Amino acid sequence: MRSVSVIGVGMTKFGEHWDSSFREMVGEAGAKAVKDAGIEGRELQAIYGGCMASGRFIGQEHIGALIADQMGLNPIPSTRCEAACASGGVAFRQGFLSVASGAYDVVAVGGVEKMTDISTEDAALALGGAGDQEWELFNGATFPAIYALMARRHMLDYGTTEEQMAACAVKNHANATHNPYAQYRRAVTIEDVMNSGYIAEPLKLLDCSPITDGAAVAILCATEKARQFSSKPVEILASSQASDSLALADRKSLTGLSATRIAAEQAFKQAKLSPADIQVAEVHDCFTIAEVMAIEDLGFFKKGTGGKASADGETALNARVSVNTSGGLKACGHPVGATGVKQVVEACWQLRGEAEGRQAANVEHALTHNVGGSGATAVVHIFKRGD
Amino acid sequence: MRSVSVIGVGMTKFGEHWDSSFREMVGEAGAKAVKDAGIEGRELQAIYGGCMASGRFIGQEHIGALIADQMGLNPIPSTRCEAACASGGVAFRQGFLSVASGAYDVVAVGGVEKMTDISTEDAALALGGAGDQEWELFNGATFPAIYALMARRHMLDYGTTEEQMAACAVKNHANATHNPYAQYRRAVTIEDVMNSGYIAEPLKLLDCSPITDGAAVAILCATEKARQFSSKPVEILASSQASDSLALADRKSLTGLSATRIAAEQAFKQAKLSPADIQVAEVHDCFTIAEVMAIEDLGFFKKGTGGKASADGETALNARVSVNTSGGLKACGHPVGATGVKQVVEACWQLRGEAEGRQAANVEHALTHNVGGSGATAVVHIFKRGD
Repeated sequence: MRSVSVIGVGMTKFGEHWDSSFREMVGEAGAKAVKDAGIEGRELQAIYGGCMASGRFIGQEHIGALIADQMGLNPIPSTRCEAACASGGVAFRQGFLSVASGAYDVVAVGGVEKMTDISTEDAALALGGAGDQEWELFNGATFPAIYALMARRHMLDYGTTEEQMAACAVKNHANATHNPYAQYRRAVTIEDVMNSGYIAEPLKLLDCSPITDGAAVAILCATEKARQFSSKPVEILASSQASDSLALADRKSLTGLSATRIAAEQAFKQAKLSPADIQVAEVHDCFTIAEVMAIEDLGFFKKGTGGKASADGETALNARVSVNTSGGLKACGHPVGATGVKQVVEACWQLRGEAEGRQAANVEHALTHNVGGSGATAVVHIFKRGD
Repeated sequence: MRSVSVIGVGMTKFGEHWDSSFREMVGEAGAKAVKDAGIEGRELQAIYGGCMASGRFIGQEHIGALIADQMGLNPIPSTRCEAACASGGVAFRQGFLSVASGAYDVVAVGGVEKMTDISTEDAALALGGAGDQEWELFNGATFPAIYALMARRHMLDYGTTEEQMAACAVKNHANATHNPYAQYRRAVTIEDVMNSGYIAEPLKLLDCSPITDGAAVAILCATEKARQFSSKPVEILASSQASDSLALADRKSLTGLSATRIAAEQAFKQAKLSPADIQVAEVHDCFTIAEVMAIEDLGFFKKGTGGKASADGETALNARVSVNTSGGLKACGHPVGATGVKQVVEACWQLRGEAEGRQAANVEHALTHNVGGSGATAVVHIFKRGD
């Protein structure tokens, strides 16, 4: 397989877009990415679109065709990929494989979700479809409840505290104040998080990622041709994906995600790098406990020490590793199908030195980590700065 | 890219499976395909699953992870692909690309849909999400209405008659009487079709494919390694996919599908074959008019002559080209996400000489044609008999 690079990225602001439809968001992010790549739309040969639950959210399936149609790109092949909240990540991986294979030279990968057109209750039911509908959701286990179980066990086994988890939210909100694309551009304090209402104990409102509308697009190109278009291509050094049981009850451990560990091991092996080589990581913090587990499972911190590391500021901008400079799912927002591609957009901006007030120093390698459901899918990509 | 072959296939009976869940159907088809391939499950390296609207039909997304979980195949990557009724076809194509690229040697492709757990009205709304929700479904255009518009125009432009369309249903029901996996194993006559009630004029009940539960699985392997497992591998000579506008109103013509024509041209070019080289074709007959258009757009018959050719018996078993030996969507049934993979299963059985009472003679090449929505996606594959 040949090397693949990202030559252009673009995204909408994440937030509650009452004035913008699913199609309009696709068009905005796509046009920005195409312009950023310095290509014409007609140079695109295929599209992969990540979207989790458009059938439930807007009554529309067939999202691949919708994207090609909206962007005026018919008749090129356009395929939707879905893996719940990792839909963007798996779409990006299919785009990567399609160029690595030689099938195409230039493809677009989009992630999109319009979540605010239905009630919060209906949205919670749609999101519950990311876990095990028969064994979890049907019995009342919504997503905050599932992650609350993991948080409780992590607290019991490792002494992780609610304040330590809150530190993830505080750090991500702080990063988001510098991100014009973020849903919540306001700082919060540990007290704010601790005083917010319980959603599912021990998780409080400010431990949870929000419901969000948004779209993000990346343009991929064979590395050997990338310089024809872009002066700052970002090379994809690794792409890996792993699966685990849909239901939490079938797992051996509740304190980490086996799919993340396996995907991370494979990715570091492919890239011939170790966690110490990564300066910036966009990790899947659908809840603060998810970030604690992610930074452990990805190998940045020893199992059980993620809470303390977060509270000690080791994941802040330019600390040991800059985690979720975008603000993460928590503060940048979490349009479920778009998040995996948004992580790539942020990684590229960091590697290109374009992350403005949240720019990390000397970024040579960045990692993205996208999780589906409660960990039944994990996708990890590693990127390298163009020389 | 390297050559890829199908080394094993399996499927459930198609029908109304009140006694079998989504998971059970996945397990049954998967186990049959793995056994047919002569491999152990642990030799599979990745899964692609086609499924259109599980969120609407059973409240469950994240189908890739569900399949891996149900088949005991964690932690290999498992990805759902969706393109409405072409979901199985695009999943098969992603599996093909993943092996052609060298990323994997052996992968499973599944297609599955459980449609009968909700009301017929809700199912019609879910299926409407395959077209343009905003411009068609919201205004009342369900799928029979959309295809009825195409039928009317075909009748006006080419003199196609209701009796000619009915001939497709009669032929497909005749084939299905010999298919133990088919939903409707009973013959119907032209009179039966003509006397069935109008759903959307000129389309009557027996012009329409039914609502169906079912699953189908194919195991793909690099051709260079296929003989390690199977004594009768089926080589994939071509894989192509094209897109068109989601809404019918944006098309230049209503009497054919541009996406089918483009995908077919590309596929024949890849395979270095012409329509005359194909003995068996599984085409997307969601409605009888769809089969009439398909056999024209694929190049088997001149535009405008598909109705007459059907009435003249030119698509019957061992006539000019044996079309929909399985019974097609009309009589074998149409579990939307499974259909594209079922077409591959039938093509392989025909090429291996295992199609029993519906076996065509001297099958050297077979073609599958899977359509999403009213033609916004079309996928064409061409297969060759193993020597």
